[in-house]
Amino acid sequence: MGLPKIGVSSGDPAGIGPELALRLLAEPAVREQCVPVVFADAGILARVADACGLPAPERVVPLEEWRCAPDAADPTVVDCHVLDAHAVRPGRVDADCGRAAYTYIEECTRAVMAGQLAAIATGPIHKESLRLAGVPYPGHTEILAALTRAPRTCMLLTSERLSVSFVTTHVGYAEVPGLLDAERIRDVIELSTDALRALRGREPRIVVCGLNPHAGENGLFGEREEERFIAPAVEAARAAGLSVEGPVSPDAAFLPSRLAATDCVVCMYHDQGHIPFKHIAFDSGVNVTLGLPIVRTSVDHGTAFDIAWRGVADPRSMFHVIELAVRLAAHRAAAAGRAP
Amino acid sequence: MGLPKIGVSSGDPAGIGPELALRLLAEPAVREQCVPVVFADAGILARVADACGLPAPERVVPLEEWRCAPDAADPTVVDCHVLDAHAVRPGRVDADCGRAAYTYIEECTRAVMAGQLAAIATGPIHKESLRLAGVPYPGHTEILAALTRAPRTCMLLTSERLSVSFVTTHVGYAEVPGLLDAERIRDVIELSTDALRALRGREPRIVVCGLNPHAGENGLFGEREEERFIAPAVEAARAAGLSVEGPVSPDAAFLPSRLAATDCVVCMYHDQGHIPFKHIAFDSGVNVTLGLPIVRTSVDHGTAFDIAWRGVADPRSMFHVIELAVRLAAHRAAAAGRAP
Repeated sequence: MGLPKIGVSSGDPAGIGPELALRLLAEPAVREQCVPVVFADAGILARVADACGLPAPERVVPLEEWRCAPDAADPTVVDCHVLDAHAVRPGRVDADCGRAAYTYIEECTRAVMAGQLAAIATGPIHKESLRLAGVPYPGHTEILAALTRAPRTCMLLTSERLSVSFVTTHVGYAEVPGLLDAERIRDVIELSTDALRALRGREPRIVVCGLNPHAGENGLFGEREEERFIAPAVEAARAAGLSVEGPVSPDAAFLPSRLAATDCVVCMYHDQGHIPFKHIAFDSGVNVTLGLPIVRTSVDHGTAFDIAWRGVADPRSMFHVIELAVRLAAHRAAAAGRAP
Repeated sequence: MGLPKIGVSSGDPAGIGPELALRLLAEPAVREQCVPVVFADAGILARVADACGLPAPERVVPLEEWRCAPDAADPTVVDCHVLDAHAVRPGRVDADCGRAAYTYIEECTRAVMAGQLAAIATGPIHKESLRLAGVPYPGHTEILAALTRAPRTCMLLTSERLSVSFVTTHVGYAEVPGLLDAERIRDVIELSTDALRALRGREPRIVVCGLNPHAGENGLFGEREEERFIAPAVEAARAAGLSVEGPVSPDAAFLPSRLAATDCVVCMYHDQGHIPFKHIAFDSGVNVTLGLPIVRTSVDHGTAFDIAWRGVADPRSMFHVIELAVRLAAHRAAAAGRAP
């Protein structure tokens, strides 16, 4: 029984994804834990390796060949070859790059769903390029939910000090109240509990934020979203035996003393959780999609177009992402009674 | 020229305000900087001193006497006597307590407006008690704006490491987008610049948050509130010579590296600023109302009904509040060319 094979979609070709992929292929700490299999355009990796002074990939397999014989004893690049590599400029919003990034995700997900790889770790994509390419999803979470036909998913950001999960994510501020319902909130509480149980090895303590300032202060602020949607979800989860508390005033949920006694904070909207998470865990955070039939982890930073192809992007977040993919894949395999 | 006289409204009688007032009256570090003049019910302070084992006030002056001869060479309690002190129970929401808390603010503000005191420092009030008392304002900022007829005000939370100011505060989540306009945002940028100039003694660097995730990501999320309201306000402030940047992605504005180069973050809504502020400065934050014709500072914690009248409330935040009131009063006096 060898090392687990971790699929990596290399993200937007014009961003820092290609150089992160090159770095992880060459990183001893990564190669000790797993066999990375990177989905990319080999032509892009060659150009970026050249530009950044990074080693070129040792093993490159065309996508058609991989599909027939999905084997990888050593670190491998699966060359999806969807781009004219010479036409790509770093740091540019571009429909072709958006389409390429989507293809890497799609092909990598297919291989994980087929059991050929143990997990997918995703590099950063650019939402505008994706939109220009006509991809009808705002981000990874939605793409993967669709590709794997997962009925209920949510985003988790996790680090040593703090984990946050989300009832809503990439939607406008004003849309959030209309997207809250007790069933969705209860789903996120359950998904978060399952994930933190795997990560912590014990029953996790979950805190659920309110939507309004001071969690509405008994109806003083807002439309009683706390009483209508959040409290019933918390009650139902608690009745099912989960260790969950809320709705809590959002600005109290992230007090250091409170965080020390919390395994995961369930947030109603993107910035409720992203603001404290990025402040606290800015260089060590990993994004995990919960509720998928496969393990998926991701960097929680963007494409960093301003520094792309210059070889200065910090790869540590990507190494954390691989490490967590390996851990979660092992946990899932153990739960299913099989090797990862 | 003696020490400045700092007025203190003692807050909700059923909360921790009375014991904080007793502590500051007795605190050498406070008495070295100023003469505190506390507006309270003397009967409540006597009961709380007894319950908490704190020294009773040395000098108590009935409100009627204070109004005729507003003198205070030594720490003083102005006895507003609006309550039956024996009927008050700690930790209870109560209309009489709400009315009393409002009276302390009103009388103290009157004395500051008349130039008898240099500033007002306010103890914590309970919003529900205030509402039961029929006070038509959700909090201190709105009460003081009305009492002093200030046309434009905003809340600032400040600490050594971080300051945040607010375009909206105590309103429901869903109301926020309808309250944004470029003029209001520009007012808050200007008020924040003035305040941080006083606090830092130099031109401050202001960062303005977007409303939507990723500040809308060029219209991908939200109703282009960034382009419609925030960017025009930032442009106008910059054209007027202020050092201001934005709209910035809210989760990037609070990255530690970014905060290190920022004097104040202008936030669109309560939790956008309160979540990171309370995490970072939970025990040292001071609330300042900007735009008033008087100096007003406040604790940034609540009434803490669960520990009221037990003598365990931490008074350090209140001491910071007094210290900042003294500093801001001195700055304002210097700017006006007179003694505080």
